[in-house]
Amino acid sequence: MDVPTDIPIRVDLYSDTITRPTLAMREYMCQAEVGDEQLGEDPTVNRLQDMVAELLGKEAALYLPSGTMCNQIAFCVHCQPGDEVIMDKTAHPLHYEGGGPTPLKGILIRTVDGERGVYSARQVEEALRERSRYNPRSRAISIEQTSNMGGGKCWPLETIREVCEVAHAHGMATHMDGARLLNAVVATGISAKAYAASLDSLWLDLSKGLGAPVGGVLAGSKAFIEEAWRYKQLLGGAMRQAGIIAAAGIYALEHHVERLAEDHENAKLLAQGLAEVPGIRIRPQDVETNIVFFDVTETGMTTQQFIDRARYEHGVRFSKMNGRVRAITHLDVTRQDIEQAIQAARTIVETPHTTMRKQDRAAFQQAY
Amino acid sequence: MDVPTDIPIRVDLYSDTITRPTLAMREYMCQAEVGDEQLGEDPTVNRLQDMVAELLGKEAALYLPSGTMCNQIAFCVHCQPGDEVIMDKTAHPLHYEGGGPTPLKGILIRTVDGERGVYSARQVEEALRERSRYNPRSRAISIEQTSNMGGGKCWPLETIREVCEVAHAHGMATHMDGARLLNAVVATGISAKAYAASLDSLWLDLSKGLGAPVGGVLAGSKAFIEEAWRYKQLLGGAMRQAGIIAAAGIYALEHHVERLAEDHENAKLLAQGLAEVPGIRIRPQDVETNIVFFDVTETGMTTQQFIDRARYEHGVRFSKMNGRVRAITHLDVTRQDIEQAIQAARTIVETPHTTMRKQDRAAFQQAY
Amino acid sequence: MDVPTDIPIRVDLYSDTITRPTLAMREYMCQAEVGDEQLGEDPTVNRLQDMVAELLGKEAALYLPSGTMCNQIAFCVHCQPGDEVIMDKTAHPLHYEGGGPTPLKGILIRTVDGERGVYSARQVEEALRERSRYNPRSRAISIEQTSNMGGGKCWPLETIREVCEVAHAHGMATHMDGARLLNAVVATGISAKAYAASLDSLWLDLSKGLGAPVGGVLAGSKAFIEEAWRYKQLLGGAMRQAGIIAAAGIYALEHHVERLAEDHENAKLLAQGLAEVPGIRIRPQDVETNIVFFDVTETGMTTQQFIDRARYEHGVRFSKMNGRVRAITHLDVTRQDIEQAIQAARTIVETPHTTMRKQDRAAFQQAY
Amino acid sequence: MDVPTDIPIRVDLYSDTITRPTLAMREYMCQAEVGDEQLGEDPTVNRLQDMVAELLGKEAALYLPSGTMCNQIAFCVHCQPGDEVIMDKTAHPLHYEGGGPTPLKGILIRTVDGERGVYSARQVEEALRERSRYNPRSRAISIEQTSNMGGGKCWPLETIREVCEVAHAHGMATHMDGARLLNAVVATGISAKAYAASLDSLWLDLSKGLGAPVGGVLAGSKAFIEEAWRYKQLLGGAMRQAGIIAAAGIYALEHHVERLAEDHENAKLLAQGLAEVPGIRIRPQDVETNIVFFDVTETGMTTQQFIDRARYEHGVRFSKMNGRVRAITHLDVTRQDIEQAIQAARTIVETPHTTMRKQDRAAFQQAY
Repeated sequence: MDVPTDIPIRVDLYSDTITRPTLAMREYMCQAEVGDEQLGEDPTVNRLQDMVAELLGKEAALYLPSGTMCNQIAFCVHCQPGDEVIMDKTAHPLHYEGGGPTPLKGILIRTVDGERGVYSARQVEEALRERSRYNPRSRAISIEQTSNMGGGKCWPLETIREVCEVAHAHGMATHMDGARLLNAVVATGISAKAYAASLDSLWLDLSKGLGAPVGGVLAGSKAFIEEAWRYKQLLGGAMRQAGIIAAAGIYALEHHVERLAEDHENAKLLAQGLAEVPGIRIRPQDVETNIVFFDVTETGMTTQQFIDRARYEHGVRFSKMNGRVRAITHLDVTRQDIEQAIQAARTIVETPHTTMRKQDRAAFQQAY
Repeated sequence: MDVPTDIPIRVDLYSDTITRPTLAMREYMCQAEVGDEQLGEDPTVNRLQDMVAELLGKEAALYLPSGTMCNQIAFCVHCQPGDEVIMDKTAHPLHYEGGGPTPLKGILIRTVDGERGVYSARQVEEALRERSRYNPRSRAISIEQTSNMGGGKCWPLETIREVCEVAHAHGMATHMDGARLLNAVVATGISAKAYAASLDSLWLDLSKGLGAPVGGVLAGSKAFIEEAWRYKQLLGGAMRQAGIIAAAGIYALEHHVERLAEDHENAKLLAQGLAEVPGIRIRPQDVETNIVFFDVTETGMTTQQFIDRARYEHGVRFSKMNGRVRAITHLDVTRQDIEQAIQAARTIVETPHTTMRKQDRAAFQQAY
Repeated sequence: MDVPTDIPIRVDLYSDTITRPTLAMREYMCQAEVGDEQLGEDPTVNRLQDMVAELLGKEAALYLPSGTMCNQIAFCVHCQPGDEVIMDKTAHPLHYEGGGPTPLKGILIRTVDGERGVYSARQVEEALRERSRYNPRSRAISIEQTSNMGGGKCWPLETIREVCEVAHAHGMATHMDGARLLNAVVATGISAKAYAASLDSLWLDLSKGLGAPVGGVLAGSKAFIEEAWRYKQLLGGAMRQAGIIAAAGIYALEHHVERLAEDHENAKLLAQGLAEVPGIRIRPQDVETNIVFFDVTETGMTTQQFIDRARYEHGVRFSKMNGRVRAITHLDVTRQDIEQAIQAARTIVETPHTTMRKQDRAAFQQAY
Repeated sequence: MDVPTDIPIRVDLYSDTITRPTLAMREYMCQAEVGDEQLGEDPTVNRLQDMVAELLGKEAALYLPSGTMCNQIAFCVHCQPGDEVIMDKTAHPLHYEGGGPTPLKGILIRTVDGERGVYSARQVEEALRERSRYNPRSRAISIEQTSNMGGGKCWPLETIREVCEVAHAHGMATHMDGARLLNAVVATGISAKAYAASLDSLWLDLSKGLGAPVGGVLAGSKAFIEEAWRYKQLLGGAMRQAGIIAAAGIYALEHHVERLAEDHENAKLLAQGLAEVPGIRIRPQDVETNIVFFDVTETGMTTQQFIDRARYEHGVRFSKMNGRVRAITHLDVTRQDIEQAIQAARTIVETPHTTMRKQDRAAFQQAY
């Protein structure tokens, strides 16, 4: 990808996946004691797994190279071919995981139409299939905490409980895609363990807001994790001296959780600033954590045009999702960066004609 | 796993997967420049991929968290459900990859009965299916270089060419599981590029003899790698700042290739030493690289008994494969270690009664 | 299933799948010349396939034991694991085919929210996935003619053309579930060939309105049918002297097509009659073919109560679909039957208290 | 397929699948009482299922359109993706069922090297996988009675018991592909129930020696058959008024079982006759039922040449399997036909030069 390099990215709000390990984290990784994790001999991997199991109040946990693999494995363990998982229509596995568990194991996904990614127990009830040989089998529900496409909205604890109660009453498993669970924990003050209590499986992402370079940790009962290990092998997620990268997860859990509050504050600042830019539609009161969605189409620009100009004229990188502009704050974004981003948005909106050279633009667009 | 810890492992011949990163490798990793590899922005991952593509004479390459994932993805790209891959009956995907591509994509594996893991073009011809709607479709062949269960035997270049010629003549794809390809390169003096020339896809393992902690690199045409990327996402192998671990791969390729010759020498020494122990059956002339298989059943002990005593009475760890004892030399095994291992074997054979406490033995056996 | 048998079914509007072969059809079947269809030696099967290929203007056709198998095979031929088929949210494969192609081949289904089962080209455009390695691949669209849950609504020819044009422009295959295609043909006067023109694959059901006991015929290009044969073998749909049952299909195509007009007339009569029953909500103008949906909930009865009383007190069998009552007219339903059904509905609505014995009711309900 | 038609087939030993329904069978079918089998309302299907369940001593049975579907469904019910079925290397699902359960559900097949299709309990033990997350799970065994490629060899009752005992001891399911089970019953005098006793599932083929045109019947426990119904729907094997063809099965079970003895006698006659033709290698003592394999390569002809000349010069059709000539006797083959076949073989062998015209030969060969 040959992105024009003369305008470097100065403020990167593309995603919290782009955080780079800090110097302290790198030093910690460098000194990690390691072993072959497939033999259970990597003490750092083992320690990280224990920490997460403890944090989430589960019997066991498993370190995996990505959050996507955490989701894939959880669905594969809970479901057989022809079983169906209920999730919100905006859920990540549906749109960003290469088809999710469907190509891997013939598992169906049934979507419900939640409110900013959060659906209700009643919606689960309506989505349940009658037991019949003509029907897929309703087998699991999945909750995304926080909801990415829902703008970082937190699932209320009560809603989680209600949804899980319905699911369990119908013999279904309950799973949480906890890519940003700790953002919810920090934003609401509700413990991870409390959120996890009614879930059969859930995972934490280490490589998003927490700032670790690689991996997620999936947790559940011992039997669940034992079966998850089979899939870890099958999918090729079983590594060797993975303690090197697992160490970053330990470091992140010890040093980068509380500071998520700064990201949330920055996200609110950004939303408030953008709300004052004419033509940008945004509801600052919707910003609960570190994700900000806004609509620029009233300015006369398309979403893509706005994003390209921000990136190429101002070095501010946003992403596009579901037709809107998305900004995510994280470890590598400061309060000044937020002010710069707001200023860039204002300038773009107020300056109708782009200063971007045509050829750069073409190169740029092709790259994304 | 609560292995009795009072007898630490002093010589670890379990596998070359257990090598730990050296201090120099750790320092190199610690300083790696990184980015989000899914956006193509991790310069270290990109550099590693370019190095391997260059080394193997292929258009493109893809960093993945394990060799198993390299195999899984290659078969998934080459084959559709109901297609068949021909490989030796001892090949790794059949026995150590959770069922290999079969559960993932409904791909069949047809085995041929090679000589120490190396089969012939004629055997491929005999294994080909007639085109018919009753039959699976013969779609790919897979070669394991070196053959693990074949005792590290190197596929001769000529045999590779002949096998691939037959495969290509029948519209089949050719794949190499190059877990220990560089061992073959060092042992024979034939370049990796020469070995790779008739293959449509192949991969290098970084976490075996090369001593990196995590990963393999899969190479092929641009179109192949583009499709491989889809599977990397689907299987959950797409990481973020993977440059941290990819850096170890670069370091290993730059510093740990030539030294594989030492491992081969140590393996030969081991084989020669064991050959002199009464009751141990071994053919030292079969040892071409870093893998040594031997049979202890003539001593009156079972394979497992021998392995347990070596581990528990002498701190020497072997593994068991296919009913025989396997030893693999690697970066963390010295010439003195080899001598110690030979001495341990001799003592075990000459001392019929074990000194191992019963309860330790039970704990030990359960652990493996 | 021990349904109370003292009240036999006198009018069976459950589905057009329940038609029994006529005496003439039976005689025709009895005399059919047969052979092994897997060897291409069943002249009757061959003739039926040729007739359908000709009728639909396609190169080739394949006799299969059910319409479900026609759908399954078409999707399996058009799609690979991880590919996505766009269809209406009410489409049959989603709800009545055991999960459809998802458990069989990891194919995703993306639903659009059509108007009574008919969606638009614009809806297809909106449902298309961007090409990306994170996404499933949009690979086919499926049209159900007529729409069962849409109350037998006919897809307009122009809409079919537009939808197919969009699909083809994006490299997608176009498929028609023609379970009741001939009902549309008879209702609109548009030829089957005209409907089929923009479709890559489609099938006719012989065992619904046409009155044959078993089977459907799938049509498409020669290459499509060749590949479909592979799946016929794989799924176990390859029979032997299938000419016996294929003969009924020939007979039906020769004698039972024009008479579908009677079923349509009966359906309209039924709708008009029911519209005059207080508390029954129905739009007679929506009835285009042989399917009638109506809502009884304003009468104070549940849908199931109404259905049970009709069946058990009056010997009139309806079915329940999507919370409403469904009636389907067919070969074994006369105009008098329709009048009887209307009368039964009226009596049920006007007689609030059921005459059904409790134990019969329980037995009855369990049976369905 | 344009086979030269000037030489009609006079003796068809291609397979017992080619039997055509007799006049009496056709009349019986013609009068069958039918209903919608998916609603459980086809009395003829229900009766056939009850007959087979009774015959095999199982709780329940399910009528299916083919023996292949019986196998596919049984494996799909017994196994999950990544599970492994042990069967003989010559077993039918491996070679004639489009890949068998592998493409359908990611099930692996592990072959053992039996004696003419019959393997031992010890071979099962050796093929069992250790429980490990690296391994497929050994989950079922499959027995083919009689063994087709084994030349119609009958599995001894004692061997079946031993094999099943090992399987059950390891938590595995036991399945019989009973394509020609009744041939074994007639040949040995052992009842079908006795053969079935240690099996969790098995099926009878109606369209082979029994002479019915379509179908097989799968039997097992109620729970097994309930789950099998789900797969019947999914695979498209759920038909409608299937009583028409099921009736032929009833007729066959009532009239065509005892007469299998004639087929066996004819097979023996054929084998003895062929044994006297110079250059034909055959062991008449191996012929236990209705299948005869012989080798013609010592005559200087290839197997295909012999088959073509028999078909084209003499109107005698054999088939080719595993490089040998196969003849199967059945309902439509008389003792005179056998004599004609022997005479044809003798003439072919004694007349070195073919009388077949080149162009006919080409056309003929293309057709098969």
